[in-house]
Amino acid sequence: MFEENDALTAALAEALGAAKLTCATAESCTGGLIGALLTARPGSSDWYLGGVISYANSVKERVLGVSAGDLAAWGAVSEPVVRAMAAGACRVTGADAAVATSGVAGPGGGSPDKPVGTVWIAVALRGRTWAECLHFSGDRDAVRVQAARQALRMLLECLQEP
Amino acid sequence: MFEENDALTAALAEALGAAKLTCATAESCTGGLIGALLTARPGSSDWYLGGVISYANSVKERVLGVSAGDLAAWGAVSEPVVRAMAAGACRVTGADAAVATSGVAGPGGGSPDKPVGTVWIAVALRGRTWAECLHFSGDRDAVRVQAARQALRMLLECLQEP
Repeated sequence: MFEENDALTAALAEALGAAKLTCATAESCTGGLIGALLTARPGSSDWYLGGVISYANSVKERVLGVSAGDLAAWGAVSEPVVRAMAAGACRVTGADAAVATSGVAGPGGGSPDKPVGTVWIAVALRGRTWAECLHFSGDRDAVRVQAARQALRMLLECLQEP
Repeated sequence: MFEENDALTAALAEALGAAKLTCATAESCTGGLIGALLTARPGSSDWYLGGVISYANSVKERVLGVSAGDLAAWGAVSEPVVRAMAAGACRVTGADAAVATSGVAGPGGGSPDKPVGTVWIAVALRGRTWAECLHFSGDRDAVRVQAARQALRMLLECLQEP
């Protein structure tokens, strides 16, 4: 798993290094997997500051500053929450950019409007946030690995935005 | 990797469930791997609240409350720092127990007194902390995976203390 993500983390290392930017993570459904992929790369301490694994909603609130109102109104797997997680990760770590994930990895927890495999991903950079909703197939591991990989891809794309 | 840790996370799930305790993580050298292993288990949200990936010293200070004095005097890979990381993880997440890692995964960063493979691990539980220093062999991935696995083992042992 770590090997096949080498090209992606190499591209991220290059993009962050060239722009002299640091990054952070805020992970719910991926539970630390994005951080583990980034730090598998030697030298990642040059551009990865760290992040928050906000698995429980209480941690999303108390550490990342996600509003209780947004959690109640939209649920943890939602656009407002994942955007607030990414912005919160920049704020608490002091990083220039952050990527956040919140999704339903399964096997439980799915609902008609948010079936298993639904994952919201957001990137925060220079005061802006981007968000997208993905639907991955496969079991819990497959959903989590695909979500982590797409999060890295999205962070890279946002770094390459003009 | 996730499969071979199933027995360990199953035992942790049972121990935490039986004692009605929640846990958290504070990871430096393992960079999210412990969180990823714990959350690979369905139902882990019942007992795992989340944690902090404090890869940079600045994150150890500003998010986990590790003292700048301890970092300067002992270095990030040290007993006082890893104990403070574990205690900080309990405090910021509100969890009953936490496990923390700080080590030299390599290939760079080693020194005569802290060679590559040196990893400090601490557990905080009920106002107490335990710490131990391990020396793992192998490459960066091997050191990180062994450290994550030993952290889970140590958390389980501390939960079983009288």
